[in-house]
Amino acid sequence: MRILDIRERAVPVRSSMRNAAFDFGEMTTSVVAVITDRATGYAFNSTGRYACGAAMRERFIPRLRSADPETLLGEDGLIDPAKAAARMMTREKPGGDAERSVPIGTIETAIWDAVAKAKGVPLWRLLADRYGNTVTRSQIPCYVGGGWYKPENDLAELKDEIRRHIDAGYTVLKIKTGGLTLDEDCRRLDSALEILGDSSRLAVDANAAMDLNRARKWADRLESYKLRWFEEPVGVHAYGDFADLAASYAPPLATGENLFCLADVDNLLRFGGFRVDRDVLQIDPPQAYGLDAFAKMVALLESKGGSRARVYPHGGNMMSFAVTAGLGLGGCEAYPGVFGAFAGYADDMRPRDGMLKLPDAPGIGFEGQSSLFALMQELSA
Amino acid sequence: MRILDIRERAVPVRSSMRNAAFDFGEMTTSVVAVITDRATGYAFNSTGRYACGAAMRERFIPRLRSADPETLLGEDGLIDPAKAAARMMTREKPGGDAERSVPIGTIETAIWDAVAKAKGVPLWRLLADRYGNTVTRSQIPCYVGGGWYKPENDLAELKDEIRRHIDAGYTVLKIKTGGLTLDEDCRRLDSALEILGDSSRLAVDANAAMDLNRARKWADRLESYKLRWFEEPVGVHAYGDFADLAASYAPPLATGENLFCLADVDNLLRFGGFRVDRDVLQIDPPQAYGLDAFAKMVALLESKGGSRARVYPHGGNMMSFAVTAGLGLGGCEAYPGVFGAFAGYADDMRPRDGMLKLPDAPGIGFEGQSSLFALMQELSA
Repeated sequence: MRILDIRERAVPVRSSMRNAAFDFGEMTTSVVAVITDRATGYAFNSTGRYACGAAMRERFIPRLRSADPETLLGEDGLIDPAKAAARMMTREKPGGDAERSVPIGTIETAIWDAVAKAKGVPLWRLLADRYGNTVTRSQIPCYVGGGWYKPENDLAELKDEIRRHIDAGYTVLKIKTGGLTLDEDCRRLDSALEILGDSSRLAVDANAAMDLNRARKWADRLESYKLRWFEEPVGVHAYGDFADLAASYAPPLATGENLFCLADVDNLLRFGGFRVDRDVLQIDPPQAYGLDAFAKMVALLESKGGSRARVYPHGGNMMSFAVTAGLGLGGCEAYPGVFGAFAGYADDMRPRDGMLKLPDAPGIGFEGQSSLFALMQELSA
Repeated sequence: MRILDIRERAVPVRSSMRNAAFDFGEMTTSVVAVITDRATGYAFNSTGRYACGAAMRERFIPRLRSADPETLLGEDGLIDPAKAAARMMTREKPGGDAERSVPIGTIETAIWDAVAKAKGVPLWRLLADRYGNTVTRSQIPCYVGGGWYKPENDLAELKDEIRRHIDAGYTVLKIKTGGLTLDEDCRRLDSALEILGDSSRLAVDANAAMDLNRARKWADRLESYKLRWFEEPVGVHAYGDFADLAASYAPPLATGENLFCLADVDNLLRFGGFRVDRDVLQIDPPQAYGLDAFAKMVALLESKGGSRARVYPHGGNMMSFAVTAGLGLGGCEAYPGVFGAFAGYADDMRPRDGMLKLPDAPGIGFEGQSSLFALMQELSA
């Protein structure tokens, strides 16, 4: 199996959403096609991090293309994505991972897609086989990440949004917090719960926008709500602040979508006070060196007593779905209607009672997601 | 004062060096010109991180250019680099700092150059005034970062190199470690000390390439040498490993060139076991959000009992020199002959007894560094 070409293109995400930290008005993502002699694999760099095509073109694609193809193969004669990732790391200075974990992770994910197609199996099946996991579920939980702030009629819009998600078949939702005053944010919670009922079906996300004092204030009030989780309550690298909060806030906390390498996860576990018996880990696979790196993070979590049942990868797309199903993780996320073609799953994967069925298509399954796959096909045409 | 244009270009660094972690064979850097109605400022993104022009072109330059010019000014009517940096952070998701700290830091540094020229003062003077530091020295210490591994005649080449540096006027040197066996590395140390004599004039740098077990082995042997410092003994983000080593290795450790934001420094101080009474901090200003962010890191270190006398910025260039002189730091670094036009200082700044005199030229002083300034001028022509 040989790589014939790797192509990429930056595409605007076209989202008008804002959370407590920033808005997505200029957001782009890199769509990638890895064309091999057996199949073409696709991926994109998820949402929230800008397109990274220049780094791909200048460093990572040339390094893969200049490698002796034999050196990238596994024992099965197919490309080993981990070997490809290692090759891309040639001549990279240690540290500064976020600058390359996104381009490398996106290309690595596209290689997995190509390899799974070459084998004729869904990626979740290939991942399960590769990492020794037994797939016992025919469907996996999927919650909605939504509840963005709206400039007008915020409470009414929020309730409408939640009704729409429930009508669509979702049962668990996450809404934004930290973008207004605490009283206003609690009114949003109350509004959401009027419709959802059970607070274990509701999570909140502060998007790393709070300092410790503000997060403490929120945590004090949120505690009695017994929410499913309180996500990114403090700064992304503020391990000490996370630990402080974890020591006083009993319900689950969640974090991880802004951790980009194994060392980051290790620091969270060592210094962040991350409670392996309840807290939720949310790495984004193509943004954090790819699926093999992700499997190592899950193994690290388990080595410290954590459970993959509390890993919910960030992303809300077919890539994070494949990881969730293949590695037996807790569940995945969806952002219906938010990130254009880059949100969601294959067109026939509709939620029912909060669950999504595992697809049968070979690879990641982007072929079943028509609007996204149209963008991808332009690359390999 | 208004920005008229911002231009950038990627330039190969052309270095054949290798350390324990990687080689520089493909390394590039971004040269930047910020053209204003008062003066043109220049900078480059130091060495070790690849050129980042795409991120500049796609996000940071357009954000600066689209800002109301009045909103970027300080009370003196000149551009406030901190306000420019904040503007560049618009619509950036928290975390993932290394992906943007280099392009933002490089543009911010070029703005400082333009502002100092508009005021007609050297940048070190402007920094001292801005951050309330009294400049009492007419010259500052400068050590050589060298001792790269050579493929042939390594020991003889190392001794020749050290003799050249001493003949050139340097008194303190740093050589690589961790790229060979411990015995071989110690033979390099012994060879270096044959010429240098006093081991307090010699530091070693492992470039974050060792795991904890290997670093412990090295530390056990190195301890009796009483070296000036042992730099990046373990992984960049392995705060726990650094703390482990700091608990058992009495002489100074050093780190920081791969920390990119205030939160990284805070984690080093909180979890890394960094000993404020001896360890050395080495942030690279244009790679870590720029000079204003650097000043905040120094303030954080001092708030924890550390001293700016033990801050030695990474970079070995006029930018790190200006910071060292202006903020009253311990000293700066030089890489004679290693990074082509990107190594070193103004042509007339020659070391004497290990010291470099403060220049009088306005701004950073790149104009006095002919080969580098020729590259810079091409941008603003």
